[in-house]
Amino acid sequence: MPTAWTSRYAARTAAAKSSRIRELLKVTQLPDVISFAGGLPANDVFPLERFNEACGKVLASHYVAALQYGETEGYAPLREMIARHISRYGIRAHIENVLITSGSQQALDLIGKLFINPGDRILVEAPTYMGALQAFSIYGANYVSVPCDHYGLRTDLLEAPLRTGPKFMYVLPNFQNPGGTTLAVERRHTLVALADKYGIPIIEDDPYGQLRYEGEHLPSLVVVDRENLRRDQDFTFGNVIYLSTFSKTLAPGLRLGWIVAPPDVISKLALLKQGIDLHTSTFAQVVAYEVARDNFLDQHVRRLRSVYRERRDAMLAALEEYFPPEITWTHPQGGLFLWVTLPEFMDANLLFQEALKQNVAFVPGDSFFAPNGDNIPRNRYMRLNFSNAPADRIREGIRRLSVAVKTQLEHLRALEPVTAT
Amino acid sequence: MPTAWTSRYAARTAAAKSSRIRELLKVTQLPDVISFAGGLPANDVFPLERFNEACGKVLASHYVAALQYGETEGYAPLREMIARHISRYGIRAHIENVLITSGSQQALDLIGKLFINPGDRILVEAPTYMGALQAFSIYGANYVSVPCDHYGLRTDLLEAPLRTGPKFMYVLPNFQNPGGTTLAVERRHTLVALADKYGIPIIEDDPYGQLRYEGEHLPSLVVVDRENLRRDQDFTFGNVIYLSTFSKTLAPGLRLGWIVAPPDVISKLALLKQGIDLHTSTFAQVVAYEVARDNFLDQHVRRLRSVYRERRDAMLAALEEYFPPEITWTHPQGGLFLWVTLPEFMDANLLFQEALKQNVAFVPGDSFFAPNGDNIPRNRYMRLNFSNAPADRIREGIRRLSVAVKTQLEHLRALEPVTAT
Repeated sequence: MPTAWTSRYAARTAAAKSSRIRELLKVTQLPDVISFAGGLPANDVFPLERFNEACGKVLASHYVAALQYGETEGYAPLREMIARHISRYGIRAHIENVLITSGSQQALDLIGKLFINPGDRILVEAPTYMGALQAFSIYGANYVSVPCDHYGLRTDLLEAPLRTGPKFMYVLPNFQNPGGTTLAVERRHTLVALADKYGIPIIEDDPYGQLRYEGEHLPSLVVVDRENLRRDQDFTFGNVIYLSTFSKTLAPGLRLGWIVAPPDVISKLALLKQGIDLHTSTFAQVVAYEVARDNFLDQHVRRLRSVYRERRDAMLAALEEYFPPEITWTHPQGGLFLWVTLPEFMDANLLFQEALKQNVAFVPGDSFFAPNGDNIPRNRYMRLNFSNAPADRIREGIRRLSVAVKTQLEHLRALEPVTAT
Repeated sequence: MPTAWTSRYAARTAAAKSSRIRELLKVTQLPDVISFAGGLPANDVFPLERFNEACGKVLASHYVAALQYGETEGYAPLREMIARHISRYGIRAHIENVLITSGSQQALDLIGKLFINPGDRILVEAPTYMGALQAFSIYGANYVSVPCDHYGLRTDLLEAPLRTGPKFMYVLPNFQNPGGTTLAVERRHTLVALADKYGIPIIEDDPYGQLRYEGEHLPSLVVVDRENLRRDQDFTFGNVIYLSTFSKTLAPGLRLGWIVAPPDVISKLALLKQGIDLHTSTFAQVVAYEVARDNFLDQHVRRLRSVYRERRDAMLAALEEYFPPEITWTHPQGGLFLWVTLPEFMDANLLFQEALKQNVAFVPGDSFFAPNGDNIPRNRYMRLNFSNAPADRIREGIRRLSVAVKTQLEHLRALEPVTAT
């Protein structure tokens, strides 16, 4: 029913597109469905006891900080903790480099608000995180997509797109969502050198970096940028702004993320954030600080790694066991997702319908591509999440999915014209 | 120090202005200063025991809802509770009319994002809530200001501004921030009738409505709109969208507000909110629900009314006792603020400097006026908050402020030319 308001929507809202995933979640949350669709951390490993202690402590001793209005930049002890924590990975951050956001999604909205003029081109990976596309599109972003392979962004294809003068590059180097791929270390160096050569800065989104199940930690782009270009020691942040979150390590329900950037950018972002939500929930921030402090977060992350590694391995083993040889997938070294490539003639959206009949769900890959005119195929992919279900459910889910795949394959083969007798 | 990013800010960010209040808070939080500058609820009446119980219960029984990702529209039991609660005041809302926001400030950002095209005029009260100006300006809003008097918005001056075709009106009918005034019931009817006549809808912002210390509750504009215009019974929301918050009744640190609107507007807002922060902290929402439920919120609001009434009365009495007769102020029936008018020749910003010497602070009124060309005087006002300090501190603060006022008055009189001998 249209109302007095319907005709008054601003022009920008035409660019608002619902996340496929959030729509799918409604279908896939039926109890019989095994869902690989969400990006949900496991429900069974939330550190409840620690949360309980933290709440008690906060309400006894830090209730003013937790319940009263707070600073837009965030709760100072939490900002300091984050700065200390990332410094261990070579990111030389201090409190004035850290802005707390209402989840990493708000970091993307803030970045869009601060940097994107209508019509600006943003260079993104193909595929990329659809939440970033949602956040940037509302500010009028256009996109230049550069393909990824099993080693992440194809930096050998970057120069031509960079010459078109994008406003910035948006990159997820670790265990990418949706690809599950990790940007190879040589490519990190190439990427940073090209950013410098063409003067195009980088937004490095790293929600999963802590969740590595094999191999060595690779230096973040912030660190490569500083070290490679031999910048002045104090000049910590050159061409890279770094984003991360507690959503995958503590709890997404807290809605706590952060932006690490030069102080002038942080000030400007904080100014915008005042008008957006004054500040992120201090209640969530102070509780998260009390939960994470004294190295509890590290200890908890070790537990998550062991739980999620097992689930990843269960999914990889089941894919190996059940899936036909025409189908390939990435081998993620960490994170929550893997990315399946179907044969050329298959369509992931049709497969999704077939999968639902088998009570199993995933996200068809086309949602993860920017709406640009590139000829990158986008209907052949599915994203599978392995963090939210225990190993036996994963195995059963992949078995069901393989039934859907085989049904679909047989159906397609029956349709093929007979080319030889 | 400029960085790779500095030259890349979007054009819209030129409109980003820091809130005077948030800047002032830094100066005025020194321990010796008695501050009437903030809009802070009292620290000593947060219902800590109830929060403690609620946290325990949530972590024992509702931890998945609180810690996992949630629906963009908000936690369903909380949305239902809000709908039930406002229905008691005649606002016929159901769950599909309610969107939970990250504080009422996010409601304003969402409204701006959904409705404001660059250059759109927004009709605001003079003075008005500066947070709304911050939120709207970033989307390119221009303003038409209509003055207020002791009975709120001067609806007798509305027709000419409405004829200029503003996108919507933004009005705070109850215990306005900063004026402390309440829109008279006849004016509510006039306002709603004019909105209908000119087809200009209304955003009704009501953060303080529950905090009434005297007189009868007046019907909200939503209710007047429905009843006056004898709309179809099901057509609950005509020209008015309603905003409120838990910031003044439970705790601002939760950052929980809500928008009440027709379902099509709620869907569109939820779509935008996906890209902004996915959803508001479920942790804060589920805890707030457990705190507020079973009529605890009503009980707590009764306690707040009694505490804040005493503080308001202390401030009114102290003003009466200490302030010279040239100075007048509003008599708020509720809320957190009163508004002081200085003599024509005085300047509130100069007075602020003098007040700081006396260790007392307030917000100079000019921040609360939209940046338009109207000839509404704006340097003669100060906003005083009475909710954050106990009665004796309020009395002492007003005494100090009166010293600053008298010093300033004497200084100005000494400068006056001798016009008669």
